Amino acid sequence: DFMSALDEVHPAFGVSEEELQQVIQNGIIHYDAAVDELLKSGQLFVEQVRSSTRTPLVSILLHGPPGSGKTALGASIAQASQYPFIKLISPDNMVGFSESAKVTAITKVFSDSYKSPLSVVVVDNIERLIDWTPMGARFSNAVLQTLLVLFSRRPPKGRRLLIIATSSLRPILTDLGLSETFDSEMRVPPISNLKALERVLREVELFPSGDERRRALRMLEDAGLGSSKDQLSSKLQIGVKKLLSIIEMARQEPENVAERLAGALMGLGM
Amino acid sequence: DFMSALDEVHPAFGVSEEELQQVIQNGIIHYDAAVDELLKSGQLFVEQVRSSTRTPLVSILLHGPPGSGKTALGASIAQASQYPFIKLISPDNMVGFSESAKVTAITKVFSDSYKSPLSVVVVDNIERLIDWTPMGARFSNAVLQTLLVLFSRRPPKGRRLLIIATSSLRPILTDLGLSETFDSEMRVPPISNLKALERVLREVELFPSGDERRRALRMLEDAGLGSSKDQLSSKLQIGVKKLLSIIEMARQEPENVAERLAGALMGLGM
Amino acid sequence: DFMSALDEVHPAFGVSEEELQQVIQNGIIHYDAAVDELLKSGQLFVEQVRSSTRTPLVSILLHGPPGSGKTALGASIAQASQYPFIKLISPDNMVGFSESAKVTAITKVFSDSYKSPLSVVVVDNIERLIDWTPMGARFSNAVLQTLLVLFSRRPPKGRRLLIIATSSLRPILTDLGLSETFDSEMRVPPISNLKALERVLREVELFPSGDERRRALRMLEDAGLGSSKDQLSSKLQIGVKKLLSIIEMARQEPENVAERLAGALMGLGM
Amino acid sequence: DFMSALDEVHPAFGVSEEELQQVIQNGIIHYDAAVDELLKSGQLFVEQVRSSTRTPLVSILLHGPPGSGKTALGASIAQASQYPFIKLISPDNMVGFSESAKVTAITKVFSDSYKSPLSVVVVDNIERLIDWTPMGARFSNAVLQTLLVLFSRRPPKGRRLLIIATSSLRPILTDLGLSETFDSEMRVPPISNLKALERVLREVELFPSGDERRRALRMLEDAGLGSSKDQLSSKLQIGVKKLLSIIEMARQEPENVAERLAGALMGLGM
Amino acid sequence: DFMSALDEVHPAFGVSEEELQQVIQNGIIHYDAAVDELLKSGQLFVEQVRSSTRTPLVSILLHGPPGSGKTALGASIAQASQYPFIKLISPDNMVGFSESAKVTAITKVFSDSYKSPLSVVVVDNIERLIDWTPMGARFSNAVLQTLLVLFSRRPPKGRRLLIIATSSLRPILTDLGLSETFDSEMRVPPISNLKALERVLREVELFPSGDERRRALRMLEDAGLGSSKDQLSSKLQIGVKKLLSIIEMARQEPENVAERLAGALMGLGM
Amino acid sequence: DFMSALDEVHPAFGVSEEELQQVIQNGIIHYDAAVDELLKSGQLFVEQVRSSTRTPLVSILLHGPPGSGKTALGASIAQASQYPFIKLISPDNMVGFSESAKVTAITKVFSDSYKSPLSVVVVDNIERLIDWTPMGARFSNAVLQTLLVLFSRRPPKGRRLLIIATSSLRPILTDLGLSETFDSEMRVPPISNLKALERVLREVELFPSGDERRRALRMLEDAGLGSSKDQLSSKLQIGVKKLLSIIEMARQEPENVAERLAGALMGLGM
Ligand SMILES: Nc1ncnc2c1ncn2[C@@H]1O[C@H](COP(=O)(O)OP(=O)(O)OP(=O)(O)O)[C@@H](O)[C@H]1O
Ligand SMILES: Nc1ncnc2c1ncn2[C@@H]1O[C@H](COP(=O)(O)OP(=O)(O)OP(=O)(O)O)[C@@H](O)[C@H]1O
Ligand SMILES: Nc1ncnc2c1ncn2[C@@H]1O[C@H](COP(=O)(O)OP(=O)(O)OP(=O)(O)O)[C@@H](O)[C@H]1O
Ligand SMILES: Nc1ncnc2c1ncn2[C@@H]1O[C@H](COP(=O)(O)OP(=O)(O)OP(=O)(O)O)[C@@H](O)[C@H]1O
Ligand SMILES: Nc1ncnc2c1ncn2[C@@H]1O[C@H](COP(=O)(O)OP(=O)(O)OP(=O)(O)O)[C@@H](O)[C@H]1O
Ligand SMILES: Nc1ncnc2c1ncn2[C@@H]1O[C@H](COP(=O)(O)OP(=O)(O)OP(=O)(O)O)[C@@H](O)[C@H]1O
Ligand SMILES: [Mg+2]
Ligand SMILES: [Mg+2]
Ligand SMILES: [Mg+2]
Ligand SMILES: [Mg+2]
Ligand SMILES: [Mg+2]
Ligand SMILES: [Mg+2]
Repeated sequence: DFMSALDEVHPAFGVSEEELQQVIQNGIIHYDAAVDELLKSGQLFVEQVRSSTRTPLVSILLHGPPGSGKTALGASIAQASQYPFIKLISPDNMVGFSESAKVTAITKVFSDSYKSPLSVVVVDNIERLIDWTPMGARFSNAVLQTLLVLFSRRPPKGRRLLIIATSSLRPILTDLGLSETFDSEMRVPPISNLKALERVLREVELFPSGDERRRALRMLEDAGLGSSKDQLSSKLQIGVKKLLSIIEMARQEPENVAERLAGALMGLGM
Repeated sequence: DFMSALDEVHPAFGVSEEELQQVIQNGIIHYDAAVDELLKSGQLFVEQVRSSTRTPLVSILLHGPPGSGKTALGASIAQASQYPFIKLISPDNMVGFSESAKVTAITKVFSDSYKSPLSVVVVDNIERLIDWTPMGARFSNAVLQTLLVLFSRRPPKGRRLLIIATSSLRPILTDLGLSETFDSEMRVPPISNLKALERVLREVELFPSGDERRRALRMLEDAGLGSSKDQLSSKLQIGVKKLLSIIEMARQEPENVAERLAGALMGLGM
Repeated sequence: DFMSALDEVHPAFGVSEEELQQVIQNGIIHYDAAVDELLKSGQLFVEQVRSSTRTPLVSILLHGPPGSGKTALGASIAQASQYPFIKLISPDNMVGFSESAKVTAITKVFSDSYKSPLSVVVVDNIERLIDWTPMGARFSNAVLQTLLVLFSRRPPKGRRLLIIATSSLRPILTDLGLSETFDSEMRVPPISNLKALERVLREVELFPSGDERRRALRMLEDAGLGSSKDQLSSKLQIGVKKLLSIIEMARQEPENVAERLAGALMGLGM
Repeated sequence: DFMSALDEVHPAFGVSEEELQQVIQNGIIHYDAAVDELLKSGQLFVEQVRSSTRTPLVSILLHGPPGSGKTALGASIAQASQYPFIKLISPDNMVGFSESAKVTAITKVFSDSYKSPLSVVVVDNIERLIDWTPMGARFSNAVLQTLLVLFSRRPPKGRRLLIIATSSLRPILTDLGLSETFDSEMRVPPISNLKALERVLREVELFPSGDERRRALRMLEDAGLGSSKDQLSSKLQIGVKKLLSIIEMARQEPENVAERLAGALMGLGM
Repeated sequence: DFMSALDEVHPAFGVSEEELQQVIQNGIIHYDAAVDELLKSGQLFVEQVRSSTRTPLVSILLHGPPGSGKTALGASIAQASQYPFIKLISPDNMVGFSESAKVTAITKVFSDSYKSPLSVVVVDNIERLIDWTPMGARFSNAVLQTLLVLFSRRPPKGRRLLIIATSSLRPILTDLGLSETFDSEMRVPPISNLKALERVLREVELFPSGDERRRALRMLEDAGLGSSKDQLSSKLQIGVKKLLSIIEMARQEPENVAERLAGALMGLGM
Repeated sequence: DFMSALDEVHPAFGVSEEELQQVIQNGIIHYDAAVDELLKSGQLFVEQVRSSTRTPLVSILLHGPPGSGKTALGASIAQASQYPFIKLISPDNMVGFSESAKVTAITKVFSDSYKSPLSVVVVDNIERLIDWTPMGARFSNAVLQTLLVLFSRRPPKGRRLLIIATSSLRPILTDLGLSETFDSEMRVPPISNLKALERVLREVELFPSGDERRRALRMLEDAGLGSSKDQLSSKLQIGVKKLLSIIEMARQEPENVAERLAGALMGLGM
């Protein structure tokens, strides 16, 4: 089924297997029900594109704070679709490209996709693709305009396309006139409760024993990190990517793991 | 007659039949009297160009909210004219074009049109053609100036031209000095009452039976979506394009169609 | 004489007869004394250039609201001069030109004019020539500077030149430093009284009979369009070009001509 | 002597006789003592450059309202110097030049001047040379920087150079950092009293008899144009260039000369 | 061990030994515990990259006031890592590079680093790399975007990379969206107490005897430079680089060393 | 010794003797103690670079009002150093250079300097080198960034470099981030007392006799120019360069020298 397909690898014509693997190197940890809901919604859009004739184009946006897992989730949904054409458009592959080289590269992926009956294109990190910088609100209008058209241009007769875009700057997209182009938006939340945190810690085996893990969690609870019931008002707000980074730093000092972990998490909470 | 001509296809020299078909893929649903009035007005301008010697150039603007059906209506009027030359200028065909390539492409269509005694040119999505972005009010002045001149340049002696432009950003056109160039403007409204909605639902056969459709409409009525008599103050404000998209999403969960439809429409209404 | 010369055509070396004809396609309707005064003033400048040795260069500006007839009047004055060199510089002939191509084209016309003992150059629609757009106050400084110099550069010894420029944006010209370069300015007013309107209606034979025309005018009078004696405070303010366009639209529905005419004119008056 | 040299022509190596003549086509009318003082001061600078070893470079600025006679005066001083190298740098000769072509042309004149033991360079109409436009305060910084350096760069050993620059925009020069580079500044005033006006009228023989001229002047006096003793508060403020233009227009209607002259001058005074 | 490795030189494939030496010409003076803590932290990150599989990319920022020793410390940590690939990206080697040449050069170092199993790249003086100037907030967006991507792009499978960046403009980095990309930040403080100052003076042997050094320090103490216990409120705030420069100036007047040193330090303190 | 070396000429490899002479054409007049102090300080920096191993790079800034003598003093200090490599980077030699040509030329001088064991580079008139204009705060960021790097880039091992920069716009340098790069700054003051003025007058022998000179000075004293003891509040504020220019103008009218001198100086003082 869809969920188990997430973990398989299907070498196939038109699918950049390696690139997709690269961005999910650390796997998907099912630390929260929200993770499964996001994957489930993604599956529904995959099915809609596969079956409805009236909507040969569906575009969705995954947005959320930095490091919350947008890229990994988008790539996972794409990979699980098992469509014959799956491509990732990522700024990582366009370092040093001129504006027009970027436009050409992006356009090429879409043109290629029109040759497959069923395609999914992941457009990762929109703000970086358009060279966005908050200072002076600079960006590449050429790339932006290309995305604006490609996100709503219908594929030719008989072709169907799912677009999955990601961004950490949801409000900027509105100012850029980009947010109206999506058929649907999904928020990827940060980790904001101790239970989710615990599942991650267990999964990555930071602590040698359950006792030590629980001791560390109690330390965090005492520090007030887990008190809030409400996600938004929680003092704990950390993307899974940053969390994994902090965990590895803490792992450097075996004698001090819990303290360093708590210190780093609380440093963020201030 | 004109109305029935809308549904016919006339392969002809100078007519991009396929392109026009592409933008009317889902057909024109006659969900409201306004739809027929718009088509009728379009027909009148078609006749004026055909017959008056004093106005060899007539330009009209179709404007309205995103997805209200501007492109499909403009293309339909053009197609129904049965003029020997019918062309669509669309940003979809100019992805990645440089400013000057755009200017050249646009100018070419107009120059070609001057070779036919009777021509209609649909200039679709002006804001995208000029690379408009609200952030920093950026746009291509070269393309804008080209449109400003072409929209009011008389065709050579003995040639007649109807220009149909579309835009979702009517107020911006004024700021750009573009709105004075049109001989006439027509607003394409969003769907804002339950009766129009019902006609669309019937046409696309979302529900297996009339009973289920009526149940869904009652649900929407109870939610207050249909209470208002006045179009502008109605809580329901949705372009037919977006509506068709929502309908297809709802269709994915056969057991839950009415609920998902209502949910999506009410989500918009907030 | 000058007035009757307006209607004649003189094929001559250095005169772009066809271009001039093109912009006066609908002729000059003498709907008001102002029209004749403008033509008379133009004639005086034509004579001054012909006869005075101290002013081998005279430049005048025709300005007024959009569609008030500036281009047609300027071209008419030029044509009636019967000078051996008469040229029209118009944005219509420079669509898609780069800045430097524009500068070259404009400069060429002036250089050519210096070869004729007597020349008149009509520089039509200055704002469009300089790619002016109100948003962001953008324009081509290269073209502007070219005009600034050419408008005040004396022709070589023994050559004489009359420059007739047109613009709808008189106040902008001041901000651009352009208005000081003209020796004289003349305003082309819109039609603002019913008597002038009536003369146009009669000339273009919109109504089959005088009775019907008078009925229509009474309708407009009743609507308050003709009440004001003062030109500026009149509710009727319409350029002759727009009026001719409205008339042709009204002509499309023979049974309803007066109503459509009144409707359109009153729509503007609001 | 210097004054009479003004009217002579000396064909000489390095002197653009024709260009200089072109800008003084209408001669210098000695309508006021100020005119002679300006010429006298110019002569003094000519002598200083010729004789002082400590100041091989002297640069002066002639500024005043449009049409006050700056170019004609500057060219006259240059011509009367009888230096072996006399050149005019004028925007008239640089229409359509690119920024760098302008820089090259300007620099060339200065380089050439360094080959002559004594040189005078007239840099006419600085604002036009730098493509200045008040809207958006645009200008060519490349040309400006070139002028800034050339205006204060000492000629090589044994060479001497007098620079005479003209401008109508004295305050802008300060904002551009240009005004500090001049060793001296001289204001060219407009005509602001009836006595000066009378001398011009007499010189150009607008009126067939002295009686008629005096009648016209009385008309102007009655209109309040000559009442003020103080130059700046006078209602009469007109550059000699504009005055000559008005005179020629008035000359077109022999029967009405005085009225048209008065009308034009009073139109300005409002 | 790590600390002693700091002073050794290891000629190795992929290591720019000479460049690193160049920026540590004056060595590292251990004038304060903070210096050793910074080196220790650096060592920990070196070890994390060497050992953790989940974090093949770690990026840290060294920031602090001008001349506080950021470059020397960053280069020291890199050199002490003994990784097979150690490179310095410095504006010193990119003088006169175009934007795109800079982007290419920077990208090349990262691409090269991906060929080594273990790499450290020092990205020195970010503000200079991006051509930052506070006036008008200008900078090279192309270089900035390149850094933004390279700082968070994971090396290919099996490769590991430590990035050490330096900057004097920490707040600007936030405005540029750069500061979120670092896994960790470390502040390099200026010298702000007399004890640290003394150690430097001793190390560089400014005074021929300890007595004279102590006399000079007393002079500074009397002037109030050493009174504060708190680092931030201290009147003494000087980067080690500037301090070394002042010391050498003072050394020029052997008879007056203490006075000149005190004068210079107090001049800064005002 | 150093002071007498100022007046000698040493043809040497790497020294642009002629260029240096050119900017000191009028010599250095020792009109004030400040002049000698500036030369003495310069000498100290020359010695520091020659002798200290820890500071192979020393950069100083000479700043002061226009015409105060910065260039002449900087060139004098450089020439007196008798280093084997002495070069002047001046905007005078870069007229019409493109941004990149400027960057290349500047960089070349520094690269050349690295080949000599001891070098001094005078970077004259920074604001002009970077094409600074106050209007719109425009400047060449490419040149600015080049200077920023070159002013603090250490020469290669065994090479030593003294940089002497000059500027009239000290506050702007701060806004540009340039002022932090200098090891030391020295102000070149204008002439602000009558005693200094007298020494200049005597040196250039403006007056045929001491009596006449004293009479002129008394005239200035009576006018209040010499009353103030304090340099900054003095009504006399004139750069030596401008003073020399005024003196030469006054010299033109032998009968009126004192009056013209007083007039010019008082005109400035207002
Ligand atoms: N449930 C999860 N969802 C997403 N990523 C997860 C999850 N569990 C573990 N991960 C891992 O966490 C990391 C998430 O990083 P990812 O690059 O996807 O975040 P991001 O939101 O795209 O970051 P950025 O804002 O920097 O683009 C990946 O390494 C991924 O393998
Ligand atoms: N009455 C109608 N008018 C217009 N379009 C209709 C109508 N009925 C159905 N449609 C369908 O609805 C869709 C309208 O989309 P269209 O692209 O024309 O909207 P639009 O206003 O141009 O959108 P956008 O603002 O994105 O340019 C088309 O697929 C069209 O076939
Ligand atoms: N008295 C008149 N004066 C000018 N044009 C007239 C007159 N009578 C009829 N016309 C016709 O009216 C039209 C005027 O259009 P014209 O292009 O000259 O106006 P315009 O002011 O230049 O418009 P725009 O502001 O768009 O440049 C022409 O077709 C001309 O033949
Ligand atoms: N006393 C005078 N001084 C200057 N020009 C005079 C004088 N008497 C007559 N003239 C004539 O008046 C005209 C002055 O025009 P000129 O181009 O020199 O003015 P300007 O101030 O340079 O104008 P602009 O501001 O347009 O550059 C010339 O034709 C010149 O021959
Ligand atoms: N403890 C120390 N830490 C850093 N540098 C030291 C130390 N002790 C001595 N030094 C010397 O001080 C100088 C520090 O200069 P460095 O260029 O590293 O400073 P910086 O902060 O990078 O300066 P900038 O802000 O100009 O880039 C070097 O010459 C270095 O050898
Ligand atoms: N004591 C002095 N110091 C400097 N210059 C002097 C002195 N005495 C005489 N001079 C002469 O004064 C002139 C000073 O001009 P210089 O170009 O050096 O000034 P500046 O400050 O560089 O001017 P600017 O601000 O225009 O660059 C030179 O000609 C120089 O020979
Ligand atoms: Mg991501
Ligand atoms: Mg559309
Ligand atoms: Mg016109
Ligand atoms: Mg002039
Ligand atoms: Mg550094
Ligand atoms: Mg100088």
